[in-house]
Amino acid sequence: MNQGVRVRLAERMARIRPFYVMDLLARARALEAKGVDVVHMEIGEPDFPTAAPIVEAGRRALGEGRTRYTPSLGLSELRRAISDDYRQRFGLEVGPERVAVTPGASGALHLVLAILVDPGDEVLMADPTYPCNRHLVELLGGVPRLLPVGPDTGYQLSAEQIAAAWTPRTRVVMLASPSNPTGTILSPPAIGALHRVVQERAGALVVDEIYQGLVYEVPASTSLACSQDLFVINSFSKYFGMTGWRLGWAVAPLGYMEALDRLAQNLYLAAPTLSQWAALAAFTPEAGEILEGRRLRFQERRDFLLPALERLGFAFPVRPQGAFYLYGRCDALAPDSDRLAEALLERRAVAVTPGRDFGHHEPERYLRFAYTTDLGRLQEGVERIRRFLGSW
Amino acid sequence: MNQGVRVRLAERMARIRPFYVMDLLARARALEAKGVDVVHMEIGEPDFPTAAPIVEAGRRALGEGRTRYTPSLGLSELRRAISDDYRQRFGLEVGPERVAVTPGASGALHLVLAILVDPGDEVLMADPTYPCNRHLVELLGGVPRLLPVGPDTGYQLSAEQIAAAWTPRTRVVMLASPSNPTGTILSPPAIGALHRVVQERAGALVVDEIYQGLVYEVPASTSLACSQDLFVINSFSKYFGMTGWRLGWAVAPLGYMEALDRLAQNLYLAAPTLSQWAALAAFTPEAGEILEGRRLRFQERRDFLLPALERLGFAFPVRPQGAFYLYGRCDALAPDSDRLAEALLERRAVAVTPGRDFGHHEPERYLRFAYTTDLGRLQEGVERIRRFLGSW
Repeated sequence: MNQGVRVRLAERMARIRPFYVMDLLARARALEAKGVDVVHMEIGEPDFPTAAPIVEAGRRALGEGRTRYTPSLGLSELRRAISDDYRQRFGLEVGPERVAVTPGASGALHLVLAILVDPGDEVLMADPTYPCNRHLVELLGGVPRLLPVGPDTGYQLSAEQIAAAWTPRTRVVMLASPSNPTGTILSPPAIGALHRVVQERAGALVVDEIYQGLVYEVPASTSLACSQDLFVINSFSKYFGMTGWRLGWAVAPLGYMEALDRLAQNLYLAAPTLSQWAALAAFTPEAGEILEGRRLRFQERRDFLLPALERLGFAFPVRPQGAFYLYGRCDALAPDSDRLAEALLERRAVAVTPGRDFGHHEPERYLRFAYTTDLGRLQEGVERIRRFLGSW
Repeated sequence: MNQGVRVRLAERMARIRPFYVMDLLARARALEAKGVDVVHMEIGEPDFPTAAPIVEAGRRALGEGRTRYTPSLGLSELRRAISDDYRQRFGLEVGPERVAVTPGASGALHLVLAILVDPGDEVLMADPTYPCNRHLVELLGGVPRLLPVGPDTGYQLSAEQIAAAWTPRTRVVMLASPSNPTGTILSPPAIGALHRVVQERAGALVVDEIYQGLVYEVPASTSLACSQDLFVINSFSKYFGMTGWRLGWAVAPLGYMEALDRLAQNLYLAAPTLSQWAALAAFTPEAGEILEGRRLRFQERRDFLLPALERLGFAFPVRPQGAFYLYGRCDALAPDSDRLAEALLERRAVAVTPGRDFGHHEPERYLRFAYTTDLGRLQEGVERIRRFLGSW
């Protein structure tokens, strides 16, 4: 019995890194197993359970025996509900035939990139960004080109920047609004300007909107209001609080739907059936009320955490307006965010994510704080960090 | 608003074909919408709903609020249950740390191929075979090499054949037992011989066992009994009847688990949570009794359908012993299985799948009959085919 690696791994695996946060989480769990009380500010998952009306819809679907495959692009009822939601929330006509229901936003992103990116094609994205994005590009043989972004552009790509970075091999530009890890958003005019640059160069624009709805000072928005000639990735995980159900969607121009369908058939057959039936309830007024209440709770947390961290010396040159993350500069406090994160965990049992999970641009200067735990725990976390920095 | 394809599709999409059976199914549904009574013998999904104890476990998990992410390689409880099942059914020690729970067998196959296959690497597989397999290889930039198989080897690859086909770029050999579309199985000695050839050439063996347990004259088996130095793909969809739950698993040598974990984090985060809790009940005696009863129903259907089709002139040179498919030669009845399938649907409302969905080797000589509908419907289907052939 050979338990080693007799056959070498594919070369791509050298370029696909583990999430540092997973190691960190494992170490936090190990501390907890020893009885240590850890404050978790590293986890990218809402702490709220799925809202009762959605769970109840799942239970009903089970009772009705909804356990078989759905069509590859999803239940027609759910595609229509998503379409209706674009009309009601944003006044936009996005026909159900342009909505692909997918296993998580991961499934949506994978489908969209796979129909667009040939081996050697470049995909431009911000640095810092969500790490899966560049790894999915790698998996397809594409070349992720991470462009450094900072406070001057709200930690987002700018039209000038992508125009300057464009090469004959550039095919796709990826944006995220609200962004993980920075929590910043792109204004409609900024998306419009980015879209024009991409379109003039015959590229494709892919916008990650998986934190859509989790915004705190501005109304929720979608890039589809700027143009329908782009690809949107969305999710039931974050605003809708359905992480473990693994459900997301993509919106694409009509001409791409056949290719998305063909690929979905081969890649995963269909998204989980029960999750699709349950998600129908996510658009009901009952669920909406609960989800809006949760959004306000997130806002309350952010409104506590942001100034509290600023008082400790973390800097937020751009006010984060969305998602549930604060990406704080810590270079005035420590030379290296990795070691700071490690010390915070080992010495004060506070788990936060250092910048290095999100790219190569100044990761040592940043920590990501997730406010996915309740206000009392955040207060406890801040107090521990305060005491730690006093003794550092 | 541009609804066309402004940005051209990635080149790989030219090599990823739709399933012909999906078109056929759509046409069958269109006939049904007009009130036509269609006999479905084309569908690769068990007609039984998920067994009550599994549904009940799903309901309980919902009540307990199991709606958040699980670890990327799956719930430890489920990995252990799968490990225990290998011990109980096959007397094999397959540690839970070597089991990766995945979103469907598709997820398992994708993970395993992605850690093994570099662009340009060849993957050998039988022709005919399940079409997703070669498309997943394409997606990774690999080269699927379909080797023609026929009755002489039970429609399976032989050790001599892969030895002869091997080139310096060959990395992986894929087997399936029981096989879709042929329903044939590989004996343990045959798998042992194949494994030796692959191992001598420093390649990797991947065995699709997603129809494991659906066998009718021989005991259920696993290739892990021949060697633990191979990769197994399995599923809760077929024997366990959990299609819409989207759950499968892979077994790999221990040294590959870290890479599988890293890739799972990036590719899909984790399999659906509720499905994992529900699947725990699939291994209980209550579920086992129901599943065994269903297996006997499938056997009864096969035992009717096989001789009935033989009497009509279809040929089965190798007795299919597993899955829920019969891959019948029809060249004595019609020159082209495509046209035969089309005529059967249009003129007698019987839906069957022609060979061309499964590869390039003599597809025009074969039809695949799925016995995923009850005995009465199969009898009706046979009667319609009989009348059709009489007038053909």
